Amino acid sequence: MVTKNQIKLIKSLSRKKNRDQNKLFVVEGTKSISEFLKAGFKPRLLFATHHNEAWPEHIVTDERELRKISFLKNPSGSLAVFEIPETLAFEQKELTLVLDGIQDPGNLGTIIRLCDWFGIEFLVCSRDTADCFNPKVVQSSMGSLARVEVVYTDLKYFLQEQQAVSYGALLEGENVYQTGLSEKAVLVMGNEGKGISPEIAEIMDKKIHIPQFGVDQETESLNVATATAILLSEFRRGRFTGKQN
Amino acid sequence: MVTKNQIKLIKSLSRKKNRDQNKLFVVEGTKSISEFLKAGFKPRLLFATHHNEAWPEHIVTDERELRKISFLKNPSGSLAVFEIPETLAFEQKELTLVLDGIQDPGNLGTIIRLCDWFGIEFLVCSRDTADCFNPKVVQSSMGSLARVEVVYTDLKYFLQEQQAVSYGALLEGENVYQTGLSEKAVLVMGNEGKGISPEIAEIMDKKIHIPQFGVDQETESLNVATATAILLSEFRRGRFTGKQN
Repeated sequence: MVTKNQIKLIKSLSRKKNRDQNKLFVVEGTKSISEFLKAGFKPRLLFATHHNEAWPEHIVTDERELRKISFLKNPSGSLAVFEIPETLAFEQKELTLVLDGIQDPGNLGTIIRLCDWFGIEFLVCSRDTADCFNPKVVQSSMGSLARVEVVYTDLKYFLQEQQAVSYGALLEGENVYQTGLSEKAVLVMGNEGKGISPEIAEIMDKKIHIPQFGVDQETESLNVATATAILLSEFRRGRFTGKQN
Repeated sequence: MVTKNQIKLIKSLSRKKNRDQNKLFVVEGTKSISEFLKAGFKPRLLFATHHNEAWPEHIVTDERELRKISFLKNPSGSLAVFEIPETLAFEQKELTLVLDGIQDPGNLGTIIRLCDWFGIEFLVCSRDTADCFNPKVVQSSMGSLARVEVVYTDLKYFLQEQQAVSYGALLEGENVYQTGLSEKAVLVMGNEGKGISPEIAEIMDKKIHIPQFGVDQETESLNVATATAILLSEFRRGRFTGKQN
């Protein structure tokens, strides 16, 4: 049984204002929920259509009830409300990814998943980047958000304080395949339409871009999540080839 | 004004059977439609909310009418019905991409866009791969389908006839960053859940995979479109670095 107050609370968490106020966010799907639990996130509410031995106290309910609280067209059998943890203080790791104004929740979710894959612990975002606790972002990050620390901050200030070499993905940049990439680096990806904002672009140590191979220059630019995948691969491949590029 | 028969025809084209029977498919959005026109596709019907000087004969209609024929939640101001052209005979180019059972229309659309970016002229698909003229595929390929030739065929037969080295993306494969990649190559990507089918996997010349960098092995595998982006980048980067890897 899901109470009216629970429904009201959960539905309210679709909005950032309410997530911030309550310090709560929603995760759906057994696999994702299990990953947040394993990573030490504290559940406030847990609902499932079947009892799960591995989980702490949870409410077993039916699909009809679950439908009332789910953000999905096809609810996936379980839903959790977790506490938003305190953000860890940023630590400079070998490679840091920075997002300047990414708007699409699906893109942000995919990028969080990429950070997890490429072993990037901190994802630093401008304050106007989509909220990582947005249900659509949580959904498309498929549990990876449990392992990647997302920090929202003033990018200009953050970048000016950085010791690592900063690389901005910009159309006028150098061919990434011909650029020697520093292992200790900060990679900045910009907004879907406008790219990196001018005030951030001008403080980049290096500008890089992925060259287009097709003959026809009509091609749309690469989607930002796809471009991020290729660039992260370029930064990381040196670990295996033992050289820069 | 859109006639009842036109509405009926267009709606019917959401189904592959009807697309095959009529040899017609739907494209929405001015930019995409212009790219198909430029590439020589023959329009059977063209609708737009505004007159477009660059277009051949078209019907100017209002948004309410367009909504009746659109497959989109938010119709984008124009819709075209094009003839499905005869497939060009496959020609071995430097690099060919092969898909074995990709199901998700969004993934197929993204991969078609990647082929366009990486200058891959032929995309060879197993017969159970999603249909490239599915409205969702056309939509997510963002006009790139106008420039990439998609061929559906018996993959086993196709691959056995190939002269180029075939590379299969498989979990048990060699680390791609440490593999010398042949310039004349066929890259095979498998189904979202099951990967490459066993009968195709066993005839691959080489098996490759993208190593995971994160410490936690819980991470989901990379999405197939993302993995395709990284692997195509690996095959193409040699053009700029002047070496295999």
